[in-house]
Amino acid sequence: MSKPISLQSVQAAAERLRGVAVLTPLLTSAELDRRLGARIFLKPESLQHIGAFKFRGAYNRLVQCDEAERARGVVAFSSGNHAQGIAYAAQLLGMQATIVMPIDAPAIKREGTEALGARVRLYDRLTESREQIAADIASATGAILVPAFDDVDVMAGQGTCGLELVEQLGSQHLKPELLLSPVGGGGLMAGVSTAVKGLAPQCRVIGVEPEHYDDHVLSRAAGVRMKINPASTTACDSLMATQPGELTWAVNGELVDDFYSVSESEVARAISFAFRYLKLVVEPGGAVGLAALLSGRVLPAANSIVGVILSGGNIDPATHAACLAQFPQP
Amino acid sequence: MSKPISLQSVQAAAERLRGVAVLTPLLTSAELDRRLGARIFLKPESLQHIGAFKFRGAYNRLVQCDEAERARGVVAFSSGNHAQGIAYAAQLLGMQATIVMPIDAPAIKREGTEALGARVRLYDRLTESREQIAADIASATGAILVPAFDDVDVMAGQGTCGLELVEQLGSQHLKPELLLSPVGGGGLMAGVSTAVKGLAPQCRVIGVEPEHYDDHVLSRAAGVRMKINPASTTACDSLMATQPGELTWAVNGELVDDFYSVSESEVARAISFAFRYLKLVVEPGGAVGLAALLSGRVLPAANSIVGVILSGGNIDPATHAACLAQFPQP
Repeated sequence: MSKPISLQSVQAAAERLRGVAVLTPLLTSAELDRRLGARIFLKPESLQHIGAFKFRGAYNRLVQCDEAERARGVVAFSSGNHAQGIAYAAQLLGMQATIVMPIDAPAIKREGTEALGARVRLYDRLTESREQIAADIASATGAILVPAFDDVDVMAGQGTCGLELVEQLGSQHLKPELLLSPVGGGGLMAGVSTAVKGLAPQCRVIGVEPEHYDDHVLSRAAGVRMKINPASTTACDSLMATQPGELTWAVNGELVDDFYSVSESEVARAISFAFRYLKLVVEPGGAVGLAALLSGRVLPAANSIVGVILSGGNIDPATHAACLAQFPQP
Repeated sequence: MSKPISLQSVQAAAERLRGVAVLTPLLTSAELDRRLGARIFLKPESLQHIGAFKFRGAYNRLVQCDEAERARGVVAFSSGNHAQGIAYAAQLLGMQATIVMPIDAPAIKREGTEALGARVRLYDRLTESREQIAADIASATGAILVPAFDDVDVMAGQGTCGLELVEQLGSQHLKPELLLSPVGGGGLMAGVSTAVKGLAPQCRVIGVEPEHYDDHVLSRAAGVRMKINPASTTACDSLMATQPGELTWAVNGELVDDFYSVSESEVARAISFAFRYLKLVVEPGGAVGLAALLSGRVLPAANSIVGVILSGGNIDPATHAACLAQFPQP
């Protein structure tokens, strides 16, 4: 099957995002390098607008709307980061955004979405269909529905974070040998794997999931897209997609070398590590790649160049404090 | 009085630190810019080795030791960040470090110092003289005593953080119009004001202190170095110097345009803001510049270019959680 996006799609998205998205820095930590015996480069998308990479894909999609489309607005469903990404991109472009969001989304994400001028329509994850609610809004208002991940412009936009990572390493005359990225629906992973394999084909690319939302691990083993139980819980609210996207899987099924899962406590420890040693606020879903390294589930080769995407930092203070209390010596 | 350091001292320090210190990024926040109506550029020295700018000065001092001096080791007294800066610089240079540290220093700082291979000698701030203890160790062992701020190499090293800030703005074709930096003993302030006034003479440079440790505010008003009550308390443990340094004041008394102080609750709110909107872990002493802006004590001109040094991120989880709880909507 031909892939729905290419390195060129990601590069075109990077042009659209230039001067609009935050060019997030590439960070290093002597403590992390010492522990892992490798050279770890962190891409903290927590420092992106709205505290997560999601702004990239949202803006890359919406900036391509014509005037009539902009006037009709945008609708999206999301547990939070996609919501804020759409809301902020819409605000910059003068569009009205309506977000369909689960009742149990972290308060920080709902408030953040509303503060960006979006309307929020709450729904119950177990009894209502967010797809139906969003489709109804779209058909009633003519608003464009922007999916959280299964969309070529969204995927290409998210990939700019991987493109930047490879370019930032390149400016230090380095090439990534291993790259870890969180995987929810697979939009970030698809964009990032496209960019990284396009520019550094020898790099091993790994997707990381929470253990109860390991639909990519299962799909890889089965050879087809598998769906997991949507009633499972995880602190990684941003990675709660239950099945790989159709378009994202067409990319990730081919380009991603391996999928791993991490436990809830490994994630909590990574969040505490980020607080103590990196001085970064990282949300659970954003910390899975770091957790895979710190837990020893993924072992980088000695002195190898490793990229890790920390995909977001939108975490409630209470959840954050609980992780620090659980792992006072991370 | 001629000034003890120059722009050239800071530039020479930058050469020594190149590839050794972290080139910390310059970060922006749409939320911060919106609130202040200005273009705010944050220099997060929390992302520096040991979580604070102090590594810069320590390394700049110790790397200039000859072999015989290195063999005798180094001694320093510090509430924590200078301790860790000295400990890490000594470790890189193969020197034994001994740190004289108050019993009430945050646990995270004492543990961090010991983890870097330093010996720690605890003392009571109210009944013992850290200067005497350190001098005794130096005379018994021949170790070099490195002051936390009143030393030309330490001051020049800290200034590299300001030099980088101006250069990073310059690479975006911008010049700082206003710069805020925390002030404890004045070492960072002296290096930074030297660099900034040297490269951007029109920039207004402001030092910020905790309200009960406002010895620079008082000294500016009096025209001479004033000492405040050492029994005062503040959460800003890294800014608890009771009097401007002699050498640092020779610089800061002339180059710093204004000194301001901020309240403890303004600092706590800035820490909560950094968590929620910047996704950065900032310690109390590191947050005073941000606090001066968020509280409205310092008002930048509309659309002006403002640099803010976030000088460190070494904060205990309990203190951090308390700030977030005190200001849930910062």
